[in-house]
Amino acid sequence: MRIALDAMGSDTCPVPDVGGAVLAAGEYGYHIYLVGNELQIKAELQKYDRATLPLEVVHAEQVILPTDKPGTVGKSKVGSSMHVGMNLVRDGKADAFVTMGNTGAAHAIATLFTLKRIPGVKRPALSGIYPVAGQHVVMLDLGANADSKPEWLVQFGLMGTVYARNALGLHNPRIGLLSNGEEEGKGNQLIRNTDALFRQLSLNYVGNVEPKDVVRGAADIIVADGFLGNIFVKTFEASVSLLANTIREEIKADPVSMIGGLLLKPTFQRVRKRTDTFEVGGAPLLGVNGVVIIGHGRSNAVAVKNAIRQAARAVEGDVINAIRIGLQEIQQVR
Amino acid sequence: MRIALDAMGSDTCPVPDVGGAVLAAGEYGYHIYLVGNELQIKAELQKYDRATLPLEVVHAEQVILPTDKPGTVGKSKVGSSMHVGMNLVRDGKADAFVTMGNTGAAHAIATLFTLKRIPGVKRPALSGIYPVAGQHVVMLDLGANADSKPEWLVQFGLMGTVYARNALGLHNPRIGLLSNGEEEGKGNQLIRNTDALFRQLSLNYVGNVEPKDVVRGAADIIVADGFLGNIFVKTFEASVSLLANTIREEIKADPVSMIGGLLLKPTFQRVRKRTDTFEVGGAPLLGVNGVVIIGHGRSNAVAVKNAIRQAARAVEGDVINAIRIGLQEIQQVR
Repeated sequence: MRIALDAMGSDTCPVPDVGGAVLAAGEYGYHIYLVGNELQIKAELQKYDRATLPLEVVHAEQVILPTDKPGTVGKSKVGSSMHVGMNLVRDGKADAFVTMGNTGAAHAIATLFTLKRIPGVKRPALSGIYPVAGQHVVMLDLGANADSKPEWLVQFGLMGTVYARNALGLHNPRIGLLSNGEEEGKGNQLIRNTDALFRQLSLNYVGNVEPKDVVRGAADIIVADGFLGNIFVKTFEASVSLLANTIREEIKADPVSMIGGLLLKPTFQRVRKRTDTFEVGGAPLLGVNGVVIIGHGRSNAVAVKNAIRQAARAVEGDVINAIRIGLQEIQQVR
Repeated sequence: MRIALDAMGSDTCPVPDVGGAVLAAGEYGYHIYLVGNELQIKAELQKYDRATLPLEVVHAEQVILPTDKPGTVGKSKVGSSMHVGMNLVRDGKADAFVTMGNTGAAHAIATLFTLKRIPGVKRPALSGIYPVAGQHVVMLDLGANADSKPEWLVQFGLMGTVYARNALGLHNPRIGLLSNGEEEGKGNQLIRNTDALFRQLSLNYVGNVEPKDVVRGAADIIVADGFLGNIFVKTFEASVSLLANTIREEIKADPVSMIGGLLLKPTFQRVRKRTDTFEVGGAPLLGVNGVVIIGHGRSNAVAVKNAIRQAARAVEGDVINAIRIGLQEIQQVR
């Protein structure tokens, strides 16, 4: 297994990126290309006893910043660690690319400049993997395609299914379409048209799912257009953060509460762990012609290691090929 | 002040409805028409010492159920307490209508069969009023119009502004457009077109607001199409409920947590109160030609009283007239 890792991806790069590579190389024996500024990477590597580890530094002149505009970096930073790392996959030198960097930039560079799309894919989608009701839920699109067509959303459902089955090990995963209810007058035109299209295909489609169904695990793949998906995730984060802050404020309001709060500290830590999206490590960019896993900019070394592990599982599950075949199958049915 | 109250609205009607009317008549001296099944209402009224209160029963043959389809009851239940109550407003016998009943039905009956639209209004909108950062935020549309046009959304902004100013007493309230961010590539076509239209008008429009801005009170009126607005509210509720359930489960996990949980019981009650949408009482149906306040089906008598008080404030603030004038003004500017 050969993984190209963007060593310049995380907010505090290359520290957690290199640390995660060292962990993954040691634990799983993967050959890892550390792509980025050679001097910085080598300086960071000197902190580790890594003589026997299969790590290889690949220099890249430029770095994509979290603040870079996705629309411009594809052309303006062709020497970036993202370009160089993805091209290792395109040229068959690596099996997958992993980055903790700018999600929008990774999407644009992969789709338009390096890996390009899997034949048949209309639009690649950004996904997220969330811990829900004790297992993982794949949600897509999280922002790549604000105005989507029913056919794209159906492809998102297929790609999510393949990933959930082949990389996450879910048996016969269920696709749900994010909506505001199943009753008459619910959904909008896009939802109704997409629902009709899903019903024509032999996918494991369970229909519209409301937000309350999503959080109780009524489906394993949640499909939405990029605008709605992005709002959903941001609303979830904002709500949880609002509630957590309100609890924190009220605990400080009187001494008895403060004692209760101290006793509940480990409890709140467990709650945080259960509702934290970090645990998974990263999420796939689905539809581009190569395995790409994008992790969070605030990842630590363990999260980077987990993202690398995820990329390897997607390669082992032959996700790209399975998407290509699956797309042909749903194309034939229609 | 004469209020027509749907006595058959709440889930346990007419108990909290009549109770709320008794409270409001006693506290504020409003003349309240109790509209619904005369026998049931009179039986319920006998529980109270209400000889001197300005309460009047108006019989209505039919009752709208929470499960009734909004699309059919307008015609199939013309004798409902909603029809009869709203017609009291239409005919100038009451100043406002208040119901704890089926929101979709109230919208359909008001818009198409009884009050109809204020001249110039493209689409009436369902609103919600939420406690945010210590004050009230008006959110609309919450579900009446799934596929909306920029011009409708701009009208929602104006109607929300008038309500926030004239009925809630907010000084120069700020309009925000719910989106997923202001950066390049954010929003969808509808958002971009609506944003452009808002910027042409002399409303106090502050631009796109993300979910995290909404919960920190970055705007006083949050505008969205009915599909997105409905998903936003449902996602908020689902997230808060998921987090609350997770905390509850983890508190039961060990004895120390359980003691901490007992000590925090009043704290959690305060948190609940601060994040509970019930406190406000109800929300206006904006754009129909008369004041209509819709409360929650699970309202108790105090919530019904609050909804009646809200309706009176909207009448005192001359909300309907102010919307009519405001619409003419923005129409002239364009």
